[in-house]
Amino acid sequence: MEREDDRVPTTTKLTTQVAIVGGGPAGQLLSHLLRLSGIDSVVLELRDRDYTIQRVRAGVLEHGAVELLREVGLGERLDREGQEHHGINLQFDGERHNVSFHDLIGRSVWVYGQQEVIKDLMQAHDAAGTPARYSVSDVRVEDILSDTPVVYFTQDGQDYELRGDFVVGSDGAHGVCRPTIPAEHKKTYRRDYPFGWLGILAHVRPSTEELIYSLHERGFAMHSMRSEKVSRLYLQVDPHDDIANWSDERIWSELDTRLGIPGWTLHHGEIFDKSITPMHSFVSDPMRYGRLFLAGDSAHIVPPTGAKGLNLAIADAAYLHEALTDWYRDGSETGLDEYSPRSLRRVWQIQHFSSWMTRMLHRFDESAEGGHPENVDYDYHVQLGQLRLLTSSERAMSHLAEVYTGLPMLTRQR
Amino acid sequence: MEREDDRVPTTTKLTTQVAIVGGGPAGQLLSHLLRLSGIDSVVLELRDRDYTIQRVRAGVLEHGAVELLREVGLGERLDREGQEHHGINLQFDGERHNVSFHDLIGRSVWVYGQQEVIKDLMQAHDAAGTPARYSVSDVRVEDILSDTPVVYFTQDGQDYELRGDFVVGSDGAHGVCRPTIPAEHKKTYRRDYPFGWLGILAHVRPSTEELIYSLHERGFAMHSMRSEKVSRLYLQVDPHDDIANWSDERIWSELDTRLGIPGWTLHHGEIFDKSITPMHSFVSDPMRYGRLFLAGDSAHIVPPTGAKGLNLAIADAAYLHEALTDWYRDGSETGLDEYSPRSLRRVWQIQHFSSWMTRMLHRFDESAEGGHPENVDYDYHVQLGQLRLLTSSERAMSHLAEVYTGLPMLTRQR
Repeated sequence: MEREDDRVPTTTKLTTQVAIVGGGPAGQLLSHLLRLSGIDSVVLELRDRDYTIQRVRAGVLEHGAVELLREVGLGERLDREGQEHHGINLQFDGERHNVSFHDLIGRSVWVYGQQEVIKDLMQAHDAAGTPARYSVSDVRVEDILSDTPVVYFTQDGQDYELRGDFVVGSDGAHGVCRPTIPAEHKKTYRRDYPFGWLGILAHVRPSTEELIYSLHERGFAMHSMRSEKVSRLYLQVDPHDDIANWSDERIWSELDTRLGIPGWTLHHGEIFDKSITPMHSFVSDPMRYGRLFLAGDSAHIVPPTGAKGLNLAIADAAYLHEALTDWYRDGSETGLDEYSPRSLRRVWQIQHFSSWMTRMLHRFDESAEGGHPENVDYDYHVQLGQLRLLTSSERAMSHLAEVYTGLPMLTRQR
Repeated sequence: MEREDDRVPTTTKLTTQVAIVGGGPAGQLLSHLLRLSGIDSVVLELRDRDYTIQRVRAGVLEHGAVELLREVGLGERLDREGQEHHGINLQFDGERHNVSFHDLIGRSVWVYGQQEVIKDLMQAHDAAGTPARYSVSDVRVEDILSDTPVVYFTQDGQDYELRGDFVVGSDGAHGVCRPTIPAEHKKTYRRDYPFGWLGILAHVRPSTEELIYSLHERGFAMHSMRSEKVSRLYLQVDPHDDIANWSDERIWSELDTRLGIPGWTLHHGEIFDKSITPMHSFVSDPMRYGRLFLAGDSAHIVPPTGAKGLNLAIADAAYLHEALTDWYRDGSETGLDEYSPRSLRRVWQIQHFSSWMTRMLHRFDESAEGGHPENVDYDYHVQLGQLRLLTSSERAMSHLAEVYTGLPMLTRQR
């Protein structure tokens, strides 16, 4: 537990075992797993509690992530309110093909919003008396090459110094932890896509039981959902487009065009959230420097097409928990040394999967980048050939199914 | 059979049922298949007979192509001299992984040079008294919207007019037939790759039993073979590089680096052929206009990475033979109408496969195209993740196996 030290009035000194910067799924789940293993941690989050609960993010959980959440006491509401999906639909050239993960490999995914996972984690932390510290500011990490790294931060006007055995940077793509690793000790990899996603949330029951991924001549579109009454839909758009150019009417009309097939109707409803997000891939290697460990978006970003961002964060938390538990139990450094290569091995495979899904399903207009127009149409027709080959091969669909529902999440040793 | 008509002394008039322009595998095989079905054809070839026999081209036959060749009496020498390969090796990050098509799906491919297939076809045509006409020139195709299209050509100083029911353009990427289709009636698709293959033939026994495809940090390399005593090897190079820059010593040294793994030695030997070939993908749609039908390279080019060019030509010949046989037997236009969409459906799937193999195994240096250096390294690491995901998934390898050994070659109706 954290202990307040009154001897230095201007900076309150706290200690813990694992200081976790960032209260998203990776940080809050790691803190939960560590608590179950009897290891103290403190989670620091820049945003306030309400924002943290409400921010809309990913919504698909892998088979293995669901198993893990259930195993650590976080499955109750998920099982009650989450929607088990037995497959997805791939649409192209006016045809909709169902890919049944269940029939192909006996696996499923669960539609359960990231903010629901966060709510469950917060409730568990509240019940255990170990809530995160919200609305902190001026966070900085120091002494990461020593055995007692420290995190400085301010909360409610009070300065704090939090010392621990380890610092975990789960503070997202724009957090302070990754920049703490000197440039000469890391390598970064990035790929920007020439498009973004216009995403909406609407009060309308989903028009499909399972997700629809559609490659249309006018661009990608997707039909997802959050509940029986809330649909989530996406359109491929110019990443620099202004959401003000997209009236609700225009959005529904474009969704009708790109998702439409004969005999099927897209239900329209009140749009209560809309935004445009650019899309890119990013990896920072290594994910460890001294006593600092990166987890989740702070180390890697994938485009949302494969629904993998949240699942990678969960895998990082599971791997890191395993490594830290080993160290606290018997002083073994092996797990800590293996954390970065082990996580990155998964990350690069999933970077491939996410970029494969993205490239298969979006229109690439490379004429803007100096490409020949013949290339653009070539790419589109190759994508149609790819989708036809995929949907006509049980072997290819089974491979999609095994990666979409999740690579094996190695069992934790407790 | 062709009949000479003496009434016009300056231009000799010939008639046949199917006039075939181009004596490569597509044209010669189609002529062979038609003869077996009792349909006359004449094959015209620009090159002389010796050149046609000797030009070095592709060397891998799909399972279904071998079955077809055996079925039509062309399997004897193939079975004696061809090498059945049960799989291929994929190499990356210093590891060589065997992908056993045989274990995965019970299929194989055969290493048997394109020129060997051509030799077998020429021998069959000679035996039947229906050899192609070689060393023709000034070929032009007319009246393709009529019921009696015509091919004009010159041979040994004599002008000829060859009339038939149909003209088949199997005259390659630079042939005269495709341009005969008016621009407003076709669409072309093209993708150029920013590299070429430096290919060598060497008098040395292969250092591997099965092909090696290697992604190395310095670029792609491949070890193939033609016989027990002749190896065929490739290096990814700048497509504008001059072969004069590549001494034999430099070639072997680069092959050693890119193909090398601990405990394995690449045998060197006398290089007797070397050249650099740029690489691109191309499709022309439709493959039929009036009474003209395109087959093989005249309609589509794939990069050689997936070993598919020859196999697509064989599939085209099989499809076209089926369509023409139907028409001659009962006047049905269905097969003829279906030829182009049917062939293009296969072509686009194989365009995908060939570009997938190419993109997975070559280094892409997009910095030359204005890309960010982080992108180039991102792509390389994603390719490593892709290869790791592929080689660790039996489902993914089985899909590779089923496409590499060949999509089903629909059985011919006779």
